[in-house]
Amino acid sequence: MYRTHTCGELNMKDTGKDVILCGWVQKSRDLGGMTFVDLRDRYGITQLVFNMDSNSDLCEKARKLGREFVIQATGKVKERSNKNHKIPTGEIEIEVTELNILNRSEIPPFTIEEDTDGGEELRMKYRYLDLRRNSVKNNIILRHQVAQEVRKYMDSIGFIEVETPVLVNSTPEGARDFVVPSRMQPGTFYALPQSPQTLKQLLMVAGFDKYFQIVKCFRDEDLRADRQPEFTQIDCEMSFVERDEILDTFEGLAKYIFKQIKGIEFSEPLIKLPYQDAMEYYGSDKPDLRFGMKFVNLTDIVKGHDFIVFDTAEYIGGINAEGCAGYTRKQLDELTEFVKKPQTGAKGLIYLRYNTDGTLKSSVDKFYSAEELKKWADAMNAKPGDLILILAGEKKKTLTALSDLRLEMGNRLGFRAKDKFFPLWVVDFPLLEWDEEAKRFFAMHHPFTSPKPEDLPLMETDPGKVRANAYDLVINGVEIGGGSIRIHDSEIQKLMFKVLGFTDQDAIRQFGFLMNAFKYGAPPHGGMAFGFDRLVAMIAGQDSIRDFIAFPKNNSGKDVMLDAPGPISGMQLDELMIDIRKPKKD
Amino acid sequence: MYRTHTCGELNMKDTGKDVILCGWVQKSRDLGGMTFVDLRDRYGITQLVFNMDSNSDLCEKARKLGREFVIQATGKVKERSNKNHKIPTGEIEIEVTELNILNRSEIPPFTIEEDTDGGEELRMKYRYLDLRRNSVKNNIILRHQVAQEVRKYMDSIGFIEVETPVLVNSTPEGARDFVVPSRMQPGTFYALPQSPQTLKQLLMVAGFDKYFQIVKCFRDEDLRADRQPEFTQIDCEMSFVERDEILDTFEGLAKYIFKQIKGIEFSEPLIKLPYQDAMEYYGSDKPDLRFGMKFVNLTDIVKGHDFIVFDTAEYIGGINAEGCAGYTRKQLDELTEFVKKPQTGAKGLIYLRYNTDGTLKSSVDKFYSAEELKKWADAMNAKPGDLILILAGEKKKTLTALSDLRLEMGNRLGFRAKDKFFPLWVVDFPLLEWDEEAKRFFAMHHPFTSPKPEDLPLMETDPGKVRANAYDLVINGVEIGGGSIRIHDSEIQKLMFKVLGFTDQDAIRQFGFLMNAFKYGAPPHGGMAFGFDRLVAMIAGQDSIRDFIAFPKNNSGKDVMLDAPGPISGMQLDELMIDIRKPKKD
Repeated sequence: MYRTHTCGELNMKDTGKDVILCGWVQKSRDLGGMTFVDLRDRYGITQLVFNMDSNSDLCEKARKLGREFVIQATGKVKERSNKNHKIPTGEIEIEVTELNILNRSEIPPFTIEEDTDGGEELRMKYRYLDLRRNSVKNNIILRHQVAQEVRKYMDSIGFIEVETPVLVNSTPEGARDFVVPSRMQPGTFYALPQSPQTLKQLLMVAGFDKYFQIVKCFRDEDLRADRQPEFTQIDCEMSFVERDEILDTFEGLAKYIFKQIKGIEFSEPLIKLPYQDAMEYYGSDKPDLRFGMKFVNLTDIVKGHDFIVFDTAEYIGGINAEGCAGYTRKQLDELTEFVKKPQTGAKGLIYLRYNTDGTLKSSVDKFYSAEELKKWADAMNAKPGDLILILAGEKKKTLTALSDLRLEMGNRLGFRAKDKFFPLWVVDFPLLEWDEEAKRFFAMHHPFTSPKPEDLPLMETDPGKVRANAYDLVINGVEIGGGSIRIHDSEIQKLMFKVLGFTDQDAIRQFGFLMNAFKYGAPPHGGMAFGFDRLVAMIAGQDSIRDFIAFPKNNSGKDVMLDAPGPISGMQLDELMIDIRKPKKD
Repeated sequence: MYRTHTCGELNMKDTGKDVILCGWVQKSRDLGGMTFVDLRDRYGITQLVFNMDSNSDLCEKARKLGREFVIQATGKVKERSNKNHKIPTGEIEIEVTELNILNRSEIPPFTIEEDTDGGEELRMKYRYLDLRRNSVKNNIILRHQVAQEVRKYMDSIGFIEVETPVLVNSTPEGARDFVVPSRMQPGTFYALPQSPQTLKQLLMVAGFDKYFQIVKCFRDEDLRADRQPEFTQIDCEMSFVERDEILDTFEGLAKYIFKQIKGIEFSEPLIKLPYQDAMEYYGSDKPDLRFGMKFVNLTDIVKGHDFIVFDTAEYIGGINAEGCAGYTRKQLDELTEFVKKPQTGAKGLIYLRYNTDGTLKSSVDKFYSAEELKKWADAMNAKPGDLILILAGEKKKTLTALSDLRLEMGNRLGFRAKDKFFPLWVVDFPLLEWDEEAKRFFAMHHPFTSPKPEDLPLMETDPGKVRANAYDLVINGVEIGGGSIRIHDSEIQKLMFKVLGFTDQDAIRQFGFLMNAFKYGAPPHGGMAFGFDRLVAMIAGQDSIRDFIAFPKNNSGKDVMLDAPGPISGMQLDELMIDIRKPKKD
């Protein structure tokens, strides 16, 4: 037996016990007469002590241990004189009587410590060493815990986890597929699934009633920061349900996870915010509601005073930064710079200070009387001490810019703490998006998303106005999951394809097997999918999903540790009957 | 709300309740005044009744329902006059007051019943309809339950489920890889993992201590019956453990699953049968121990009596079929035919009847006296009424043929019941296999499998004799899982590569990243992997893994439902910078 205990479990109750521990040398300190070694494993750190007086040979051996050596130490648990109350094992140490080097280690390319000296590239290349660091290790353990809880909950409410295949068929809509050449059917290809969307709908046709799966999905996209070519979804679908039963089900899941993992209870039902309102009041379909600062439409109030910027604007909107009337010129200039940066793209920022003495001071005083400004303040529901920030311009752009400004103010005012969570539903998304280039509508979600029944008459008269029976779960300004009620009525499906400009042949070629399945008794159904990597990162209060994936790829889609992708042999190409094109020289 | 209850939950306690049910029309019977409809969902079947007298319009509507129509029925729960005690809902029926057709169905291509009229190909093409059949549906639900229990158990003993990547690097040893051309790095390829072997070893280097994963693996092999190009493993690895701790851990898992799922308790520790003994006594490294019929080596006893078949044989072995002395000539001829078929390949079968009257009768009486034959019977531990079956020839082939014969006798005697389970460990597999063609040793498991420490000296003198620290879990003659202690000592690894005929460069090119990782403190570790599809099929007492996969592929690796693999567009080929070769005309 290699060990009797782990490095995370011994404490004062164990003093006097003879134990054997195994682990990695975190660090050692040689104090002349004594040598201390911090021994680390997955479970914690335990201090080993070697005494020159009692066993000089052993102590000499301990002195020669390098960082990250793998050792086995036998000894007795003793109370420490110099206690460390920060760790559970900090009150004891092991007086070692036998030391066994299980494996040596070269000097690691970076220090295995929270404040490591290793850069990102180096840590990616030696990911197996980076995973030894507590924070990275704990992220992966958290991921495991969340997955376990998801499965426990879904199982408890009657969902069946069904594994859908990874080698599927290429679908022409959506993002780019990864493909796999078939050796047995030369010239043909499997595709890796972008999501099990059609398969889970087939499971509903099959009568599975409640399906879920924690499943890898694949998209061959040019990677933006923090996108991964392979990512994990919690994929779900249910039959014989209306929208609110789906929302209740997954609201239950979200609440359960936050309670189990974070100890946070959301007792109230989550807000269901219509998409239109989300855009109008927060300028985003994924608003961060950890704080208010709702937009107020000032267009009607401020126009008609010869201020050309306002008079020519389609939309003028403001937010009230409470208690910020004291902002300095410099701070206001910073905010102006912020909204004028290209990503935000506003032309300028207008402010109105509601001073604590009740006076009002704006950047456009010469166009507006104090009385007029008071009307603004009233519309904004501002009180003395508040600062009103206003943007004007084309409506859609201005709402987006105002959203950026609102989040920036949220950051500045400390409203966006990582340990505070505000989940909500955004509902009633538009069914269709008009593509100016293609001169046609595209499905905002996918072509099987059901319109809201009350908007059905608009399908033929004003398709752009039709709302979908679609919904997103948004937490802290991040879309954590989304889904919809699907179309199960073949007449509505035909209408949808017509609006999307598909001929019957197009529809059959692209979605034939699903359409065919729907002929044999498709139940009403709907579902949703959560971004699992994103959910776990959110729960940990972090932004990067990469830190929650054991072996992530970099922004070029490379695994620098495995050195993948890589060349394959000529024999493999021969078997697959494919050739690699020579790069063009130009 | 679509429904208040499912079709599997209403019983006598619910009589009088107003309910709404949804589901598929299993069948309907029109008895003139009454129409009965069996309504089916995932949970069961409930009988609906429509009465011509009380509501003729509704009854007319019900009469027109086709098989597999999706309907919603509102009504009252009543006690049935004609009770069906075979199903939980068989004592009640629903007197329907409202009927709503949610979706129509064309006539299905085969009947959705246990005794379906659909052939395999047709059912594969319409898999979503085949999945509606109880037996198929229940297989998939069983799979879910087993997966849940595996995860529950592994989590409870401190294992962390870590998702390893699907897009990895191609490894030259082992089976053929499926590959994925990279668009971002043209001319290079990802490979799909045959197993996460190296990644789980890296997780041990990373200090994860106890890892598991239920994970898809991929092998581009020519498919034999019941092999799938994508299959699922329960993959596990642990650090700081010796062999028996690993066996105890996974024996615990196997016992837990059988207890939870089948209610079967294996209270005794499982047998650990050395590979040599398995071969010697059962002619197989995966013996079916639901019954005895152990081989007895008769070579020394039967030689030297001028019977040329025996005298020239390397090995002569027998099995005792207890109570079979009454076998007829015809039965014995059948057995002779059985052993002579090409797959088994014996030259003939010699029998010895130990008649109930104590006399002995063999097929080679003219060479052996009754006294001699009695010696055989004694060696076989036979008693009056038994039948001894003997094969002779080259040892390895004869052991294999005797194994076939033993299993055949097991079948004939009803010893191989599907609901009886006999799990055991087979241990101490040979480390190396000599390949006559390549004139070199190959690793029987993989090149990281540790030799047994006591056999280390043989590595240089007689490598073929070295036993590996490797083990298989065998149940009912099927290998359910296997694994090994890995080499963590770089000197032993070097020796292993030397014996395998690898140069240092070979080793670095093929396993460089793992060898490199091992330089930074690799702990002693080992693990195992279970064939999950196989395990679930075994638990259900069935042979075909295909029936336990929601959307399996056929023997040509095709998904005939999705029609995958299929062609991809010229644009996709352009983006991937690959060309498809034209098939050679010859």
